[in-house]
Amino acid sequence: MSRPMGACRHRPQPEPPHRGRMWAASPAFRRQLVLLRSLLPPPPPPSSTSSVAAGCFAPSSSTSSSSSSLRVSRAMAAASTATVYEADAEAVVRRITPPLDRARHKGQAGKIAVIGGCREYTGAPYFAAISALKVGADLSHVFCTKDAATVIKSYSPELIVHPILEESYSVRDDERALVSSKILTEVAKWMERFDCIVVGPGLGRDSFLLDCVSNIMKHARQANIPTVVDGDGLFLITNNLGLVEGNPLAILTPNVYEYKRLVQKVLNFDVNEETAAEQLTLLCRKIGGVTIMRKGKADVISDGKTVTQVSTFGSPRRCGGQGDILSGSVAVFTSWARYFILSNEQPTEKRVNPMTLGCIAGSLLLRKAASLAFEKNKRSTVTTDIIEFLGKSLEDICPAEN
Amino acid sequence: MSRPMGACRHRPQPEPPHRGRMWAASPAFRRQLVLLRSLLPPPPPPSSTSSVAAGCFAPSSSTSSSSSSLRVSRAMAAASTATVYEADAEAVVRRITPPLDRARHKGQAGKIAVIGGCREYTGAPYFAAISALKVGADLSHVFCTKDAATVIKSYSPELIVHPILEESYSVRDDERALVSSKILTEVAKWMERFDCIVVGPGLGRDSFLLDCVSNIMKHARQANIPTVVDGDGLFLITNNLGLVEGNPLAILTPNVYEYKRLVQKVLNFDVNEETAAEQLTLLCRKIGGVTIMRKGKADVISDGKTVTQVSTFGSPRRCGGQGDILSGSVAVFTSWARYFILSNEQPTEKRVNPMTLGCIAGSLLLRKAASLAFEKNKRSTVTTDIIEFLGKSLEDICPAEN
Repeated sequence: MSRPMGACRHRPQPEPPHRGRMWAASPAFRRQLVLLRSLLPPPPPPSSTSSVAAGCFAPSSSTSSSSSSLRVSRAMAAASTATVYEADAEAVVRRITPPLDRARHKGQAGKIAVIGGCREYTGAPYFAAISALKVGADLSHVFCTKDAATVIKSYSPELIVHPILEESYSVRDDERALVSSKILTEVAKWMERFDCIVVGPGLGRDSFLLDCVSNIMKHARQANIPTVVDGDGLFLITNNLGLVEGNPLAILTPNVYEYKRLVQKVLNFDVNEETAAEQLTLLCRKIGGVTIMRKGKADVISDGKTVTQVSTFGSPRRCGGQGDILSGSVAVFTSWARYFILSNEQPTEKRVNPMTLGCIAGSLLLRKAASLAFEKNKRSTVTTDIIEFLGKSLEDICPAEN
Repeated sequence: MSRPMGACRHRPQPEPPHRGRMWAASPAFRRQLVLLRSLLPPPPPPSSTSSVAAGCFAPSSSTSSSSSSLRVSRAMAAASTATVYEADAEAVVRRITPPLDRARHKGQAGKIAVIGGCREYTGAPYFAAISALKVGADLSHVFCTKDAATVIKSYSPELIVHPILEESYSVRDDERALVSSKILTEVAKWMERFDCIVVGPGLGRDSFLLDCVSNIMKHARQANIPTVVDGDGLFLITNNLGLVEGNPLAILTPNVYEYKRLVQKVLNFDVNEETAAEQLTLLCRKIGGVTIMRKGKADVISDGKTVTQVSTFGSPRRCGGQGDILSGSVAVFTSWARYFILSNEQPTEKRVNPMTLGCIAGSLLLRKAASLAFEKNKRSTVTTDIIEFLGKSLEDICPAEN
């Protein structure tokens, strides 16, 4: 994940960067590869529509039926055999989490940025950014408005907070083009350094701010930076699908309401629980290549080819902010998964989608941490309590070697 | 408590919303109902003036006598048989606290808003809002002035803080109407989403700000949102009784001084401890339909029909801020009680007033938490210490099932 500053990523499929190569060269990494190869390749899921298989999936007891629908489209019919596999999420976490190599430098375990935080919302971007650090990233940035920056900085000295976004109220109409351009220039200076960005936590819905963030998303895409879209970022892309269409490095993490709006907008019909897996697959295909994690009782993940879920029970508390932990965690795991896959010698057609692996790992970790936090704090559990258990949860699954 | 965003509440008596129905459908909820029905109905209190009975009250040893007073009015005479019942507050807490259903979504355990926080006061609205989360609400908002917002946000990333109120010093005379209208529009956008609001903690007494808050209270009333009025909110309504007159969804929580002012203003005579219960009943009736919790050694609660009290000993520490914990807790319990009652199949005339139940539960929880905090911190106990024990106190009374 470490690259010389200013170095460009290769397009469209970047090579493992320096840090990937460093990993590949380390004895610890080679030992892990041998271990992983002994697990791979798994038998392909019997009714999977894809040749992609991670060896970490088992058919779920909640396999969706392929019941018909009056409004089913041809594409829907093509996807109607989608089977939901329960991910062996612990195995995924163990696979993609990098060894803690003593020779590594700052930044090599991941540099994450959160684009969000406005006059109204400061908690959400903080939760996402601090979670990225607590999972194991080395650096975590936040790009937010000036109003939000002071507050987010005050939550924690661990974060690097850039007060550069603007909302309509603070920009004169005749200055908008100039300010927008300056904001993009400022963010672009940093973009190449990030392994993954999260767009949306506490972004708000100000039109000028969302226009600026659209430009940032376009830039991230050109730079091949994986992008997790959550919260108000989903509001933005639902109204401007071009921002993620055909981007295999985009991950959408909608909750029940956000998913409903997305399905209505893209598929032009309502969410149908009887054909949920098919609908999710179709949604990914229609948008084109993105990975979607539909959050709920089980988090269901599809990239338009496979459908996997994580249904490990977390906590019955539904306090606001848990989605932000998830987006920050997914960003880190996706970075790790991406470099793991790229460093692996599997032929391209057999590669697992690292976006899917990142979602699986992030989902499991949040659920484990929420469970531990609830065990301790019961009904009074709040998001900060859950974040405190991210470290222990990861350690329980995948102990750090010293 | 979950409604599709933008959906209107039914008026004047809202139906159980989606979440009520979801609870009703859950096995855990049905089990709780069976348990509750086995307790209901209790024999009506022998001298109660009301048919409302919760099965949670027992005559108090501190029953007030119906001694005459020179200035007693006819209404006073009608209320002169008021008997104070000691609430079985633990039973109330257990009844109204919803089961933690795994299928629930964010927001379904309650969305609370606190209207308060100005240049001078920032602790009070924070205490009220964070207490709501610690009792078990999913989302807690604060609407305050810009000056207060940065500070309140920095206390905790868990709160959603809206910096939208203004004080006279920051608004030109010729802008007042416009600013006032914008503030109302901004708050109104959110109002329908809340299950209960708390008006007053740290509100201050700025005339322009109080005018704006009057408009917000009128809007909340039109939208049928339960409203707890405390602190400077009581100063506001004491001088403008029309804001709460005839509103059965209003709860006033005066301390000894606030109660004195209210009695003087409404009944035009002084507080008389010998006829305390009758006076409280009369006060509720005169204002019309509101519920009042008179805070003191015992918290005495009336809706103009019954008089109940909670006298469980809390703590001898009287540090500022405990009233704010109480108002935030009462807001959550009142939301829970309201949905519990609406989801219950009791005929309307037998329904217990959920406002009374909310007050009883909030009072007990604060007392329990204050007791535990004092046991640990003795003379150095401060409000934050008490808030830390809200979770354990609720867990001791009503363990959360996982």
